Amino acid sequence: MIFSSDNWAGAHPRIAESLVKAAGGFAAAYGTSALDKKVESLFSEIFERDVAVYFVGTGTAANSLAFASVAKPGGHVFCHREAHVNADECNAPEFFSLGARMAAVDGPFGKMDAGKLAAEIGRFTPGVVHSGQPMAVTLTQATEAGTVYSLDEIAEISAIARQYRLPLHMDGARFANALVALKTTPADMTWKRGVDILSFGATKNGCWCAEALVFFDPAMAEGFPYLRKRSAQLFSKTRFVSAQLEAYFEGGLWLEMARHSNAMARRLADGLKGSNSARLGWAADANELFVIIQRERAQALMERGAVFYDWHPPRDMAHELAEDEGMYRLVTSFATRSEDVDRFLSAL
Amino acid sequence: MIFSSDNWAGAHPRIAESLVKAAGGFAAAYGTSALDKKVESLFSEIFERDVAVYFVGTGTAANSLAFASVAKPGGHVFCHREAHVNADECNAPEFFSLGARMAAVDGPFGKMDAGKLAAEIGRFTPGVVHSGQPMAVTLTQATEAGTVYSLDEIAEISAIARQYRLPLHMDGARFANALVALKTTPADMTWKRGVDILSFGATKNGCWCAEALVFFDPAMAEGFPYLRKRSAQLFSKTRFVSAQLEAYFEGGLWLEMARHSNAMARRLADGLKGSNSARLGWAADANELFVIIQRERAQALMERGAVFYDWHPPRDMAHELAEDEGMYRLVTSFATRSEDVDRFLSAL
Amino acid sequence: MIFSSDNWAGAHPRIAESLVKAAGGFAAAYGTSALDKKVESLFSEIFERDVAVYFVGTGTAANSLAFASVAKPGGHVFCHREAHVNADECNAPEFFSLGARMAAVDGPFGKMDAGKLAAEIGRFTPGVVHSGQPMAVTLTQATEAGTVYSLDEIAEISAIARQYRLPLHMDGARFANALVALKTTPADMTWKRGVDILSFGATKNGCWCAEALVFFDPAMAEGFPYLRKRSAQLFSKTRFVSAQLEAYFEGGLWLEMARHSNAMARRLADGLKGSNSARLGWAADANELFVIIQRERAQALMERGAVFYDWHPPRDMAHELAEDEGMYRLVTSFATRSEDVDRFLSAL
Amino acid sequence: MIFSSDNWAGAHPRIAESLVKAAGGFAAAYGTSALDKKVESLFSEIFERDVAVYFVGTGTAANSLAFASVAKPGGHVFCHREAHVNADECNAPEFFSLGARMAAVDGPFGKMDAGKLAAEIGRFTPGVVHSGQPMAVTLTQATEAGTVYSLDEIAEISAIARQYRLPLHMDGARFANALVALKTTPADMTWKRGVDILSFGATKNGCWCAEALVFFDPAMAEGFPYLRKRSAQLFSKTRFVSAQLEAYFEGGLWLEMARHSNAMARRLADGLKGSNSARLGWAADANELFVIIQRERAQALMERGAVFYDWHPPRDMAHELAEDEGMYRLVTSFATRSEDVDRFLSAL
Repeated sequence: MIFSSDNWAGAHPRIAESLVKAAGGFAAAYGTSALDKKVESLFSEIFERDVAVYFVGTGTAANSLAFASVAKPGGHVFCHREAHVNADECNAPEFFSLGARMAAVDGPFGKMDAGKLAAEIGRFTPGVVHSGQPMAVTLTQATEAGTVYSLDEIAEISAIARQYRLPLHMDGARFANALVALKTTPADMTWKRGVDILSFGATKNGCWCAEALVFFDPAMAEGFPYLRKRSAQLFSKTRFVSAQLEAYFEGGLWLEMARHSNAMARRLADGLKGSNSARLGWAADANELFVIIQRERAQALMERGAVFYDWHPPRDMAHELAEDEGMYRLVTSFATRSEDVDRFLSAL
Repeated sequence: MIFSSDNWAGAHPRIAESLVKAAGGFAAAYGTSALDKKVESLFSEIFERDVAVYFVGTGTAANSLAFASVAKPGGHVFCHREAHVNADECNAPEFFSLGARMAAVDGPFGKMDAGKLAAEIGRFTPGVVHSGQPMAVTLTQATEAGTVYSLDEIAEISAIARQYRLPLHMDGARFANALVALKTTPADMTWKRGVDILSFGATKNGCWCAEALVFFDPAMAEGFPYLRKRSAQLFSKTRFVSAQLEAYFEGGLWLEMARHSNAMARRLADGLKGSNSARLGWAADANELFVIIQRERAQALMERGAVFYDWHPPRDMAHELAEDEGMYRLVTSFATRSEDVDRFLSAL
Repeated sequence: MIFSSDNWAGAHPRIAESLVKAAGGFAAAYGTSALDKKVESLFSEIFERDVAVYFVGTGTAANSLAFASVAKPGGHVFCHREAHVNADECNAPEFFSLGARMAAVDGPFGKMDAGKLAAEIGRFTPGVVHSGQPMAVTLTQATEAGTVYSLDEIAEISAIARQYRLPLHMDGARFANALVALKTTPADMTWKRGVDILSFGATKNGCWCAEALVFFDPAMAEGFPYLRKRSAQLFSKTRFVSAQLEAYFEGGLWLEMARHSNAMARRLADGLKGSNSARLGWAADANELFVIIQRERAQALMERGAVFYDWHPPRDMAHELAEDEGMYRLVTSFATRSEDVDRFLSAL
Repeated sequence: MIFSSDNWAGAHPRIAESLVKAAGGFAAAYGTSALDKKVESLFSEIFERDVAVYFVGTGTAANSLAFASVAKPGGHVFCHREAHVNADECNAPEFFSLGARMAAVDGPFGKMDAGKLAAEIGRFTPGVVHSGQPMAVTLTQATEAGTVYSLDEIAEISAIARQYRLPLHMDGARFANALVALKTTPADMTWKRGVDILSFGATKNGCWCAEALVFFDPAMAEGFPYLRKRSAQLFSKTRFVSAQLEAYFEGGLWLEMARHSNAMARRLADGLKGSNSARLGWAADANELFVIIQRERAQALMERGAVFYDWHPPRDMAHELAEDEGMYRLVTSFATRSEDVDRFLSAL
């Protein structure tokens, strides 16, 4: 009954086996091997256009380097207040982009409100150096609240970014979960809706360590190889990432894992609907649920072996909780078993 | 006949299998799992004292964060001119330590000359801000020239560092190769000789991606977890590093691999001694050889499938090469087979 | 009728004359001349304890270097939302402190609410690296809203900083204006109330360019000279700052100028009280007034030669303005003449 | 008998008076006043083309921001080994450009050898990220050795920079001294010879604090205003710089001062030629002399009130000094009187 995070799971057996298979023999280092090139071209195939793709070590690195690649002095990156880049990356985005600021935009259920985004960007006057300058917009897909921006919502955010000539970045730490939730294609969820740079995360969805930065316009990545190396994110045996991703994409494993993960979240959500001791904070689209439970009961669940985290309710929601209630986050993954979901529900 | 670099090899089968084994089940993320803790304590055991150990993604990250952890404004890090931190890390050390400078010290065969080191440090006058200030000393073990500092040589360098109250860092990208070459213990080669911080590399010696920063005085690492996270070097599924290192240390696999690697280099060196078409630039101690070969013959070898790199001869050596000769680097690894060495020698 | 900013004024004649006087002869450079030392000791005298004082070029530099001197990776500096460091320094604080974040705290009339400050700091859990860590608290005295923290209010903020072991910084860009408003001593308004580092501004109060960073515990400034030089803030002919400050302090000129400036603001405020076409947004303590005026009338004033800025009303105040009204900032200075105030009032 | 440095002098009386004159009245802040604009256009006039000019606080800031404005990750700035940016700026260039490296090029008498410069740049292979990448070339005019690059020598350096598509920066801390030494025009010594960015120093030549960064192609300065502000180098009362520069240029005062300063150095050099107790290290072109004197005699001179600095002789010159001799630097300025030169010579 592990619902703490999808990064508590290990790696899918086919991904682990791929590493075994790749371990023998020799191959060129630093991302120049045949396997590296093959996986890079897989990205172009999946996204239906020539993309520039760079592997990095962590999602935080992918996000931070995306911002670094478009950095401006005094730059502001507009993001949702609860975005990982704003709340959970220990100022790495600021460090890599030399002091860019994460400019928090509010909006319900983890999604930036388009009007508020436009208003925040609109506060800057071109040429007035004191307040700095807009630099980029970033959205998380799926969001940190377990929701998913619809294709129209992405287009709406992207129209604002275009209006102000700002690059649009997508933090896709849970890209696959969002993709299968929307039943759409990678291209439709990204560049066809105006996304310029994508942090493509595979670690949370069944890999050990496989993160990539995807530039939909390769010209934007000119100079990026130096930026990555300067940031200590160039692996020598890069093919250990490629080997994971090869298996990840093979036969649609990535989508299969994401579908399973989302299905487990839905099973949990459905089970909760019938419960009178817990209720969903809001409807989830992907593999994260935010659940309101009586504190005592949550404690009891933990004592019976369920693992999940206490969570700060969003500010605009705090009043909906009774005094003895708490908000808790439950995350499913490729490795979550339906038995565990059912055990959790019956324990509840 | 791959002698291009030890990072062209993949991973040892036992290390790959360890990843398969660890892939199942759930475990706490971000370095807090039981396996992570177990491997951390293995480091303390191996080094015969309580050490603080932090996994990072690359050797460049380990070195750069070591300097960042002792950074001073206007700081100078004294290193050999050919040191990896000076020659091959795309200014990552400068970036992470906010503009510290790599101060090149000369010395034959990849080792800093102790007298020159003292002279370089001695040029700084305390309090004179214009020229900046000394910040750290770093040595590479084994060196980039395939040589190994003797224990006495390390002590000599370390005495100078102490004299100026500078922390001493060791870049141990090929730590195991040096260790077995000296037939000494990890403790004797490091803190017992005055090393304060170690970049412990396992990637080049049979792992996929396993680098660690070791602080021999854990008090020096206070605050380091924030520094690592801010630098985007905290893996979520950290146990994929731990799983590699568990197998690496298990039954002395790491020493066995390093001994094999060094033995292959020796076999190659011995074979070269008899050759009249190639000669060693200098005596190697570990798993890298620098060989002077007629350019035409080198070309012919490459055409027959041998892979190795053209190398700039050290400045003080350039005159020893005939006009039609070049210097080449040959590196062996845990995966080098004696047949390949012999094939290379006979092809030569 | 120039009420745009106190930095639109030039320099007081006695300060300009002091520069003439100092222009002749030779003196040691980089802050080591007799005059530099004399002015440094004046600071210790004025603050009634041995302080470490460093001249820098701008208030932004003073603030940013204060934070840089106590920087931590992932650090958060708690400040009022409208603070200059948060709103008007183009991310210089973030840049100099390598990505520290300005963490906005709300509170009425430009002053941080102590309860909200404590709540914001309290959200951080020691050792949880993801969210970063508290690093410093800063307050502006006088505030950007023209108000002044009382001695008790400073003590209250400082008690919270102490509780969390955070250094307390004061942005004293308008230090003198606050000082004379409170009728207190420099010591009482700073270190006796727990302030650790002060940005001492004299530029806005009649100097050309004279800013200093004051460390009340000189031990905190160890290494600071290198930090200042690394930041390109060490003037060669430092005595041009010293010469200004010598005249600034001589015979209490600084207090006299601040008193005049505040008195001019009061005269303006008093005049506005009788007006039925303009009203104060809130009571001011120092030399900045925020005035609500009908937009048309403000426009007319500008056309008649009055210079002052349109200002965003604070969020919690926006509803108090009628649709045809705007908020405007009027700033007085040492050079403001009572005739100009009266002309403005009668024009209104 | 002050020959320690030209920054030991104060300001020329006409420059001090200009500050008195500008002190009254009000003017727009942050470089937007009529006087600021007037002085900016003076630069375009003097350089015979439309230039973008930005005032900053120190020469170190000018140099560091020049590099920051063309920064690349892993960047190398090629400079003479003795260049101020390499030897005397406490890593500010590295800090502002986020870890760019100062790549030392040798050459006699403070000037880069063009062949060595080409060889150093040529060592980098485009696309090989490990070693970083060339980023800029910088030369100092007049050099730190008191010499001056001829127009042809500048053109030669600039041809190499062009060949590698690198921007060429000139550190003109002593621009006027070089200009009058060459009897040329500002345009001929800069952009007509391929210089892209100039640090224009006036502080050493009779101003209090007046440094500017000049971009000969204003398009290169796009975004620079944010960079300057982010670096805390935007003065609020900018006109205090403009007022100095207005007087500086007025009636050719700057050239007059530089001619005087150089003439005093020549007078000193001529006097030394007849001496048998001191000799010039090499022929100087501007206002710095490097003199070999018996240590005892130098000591005696200092005791009689002469102020000048002990200097490290260049490496290739050390052997020309007898054991009891030292090398000393003597610098003249606009304020040096011929009596002092003569007193020094007779004391010698």
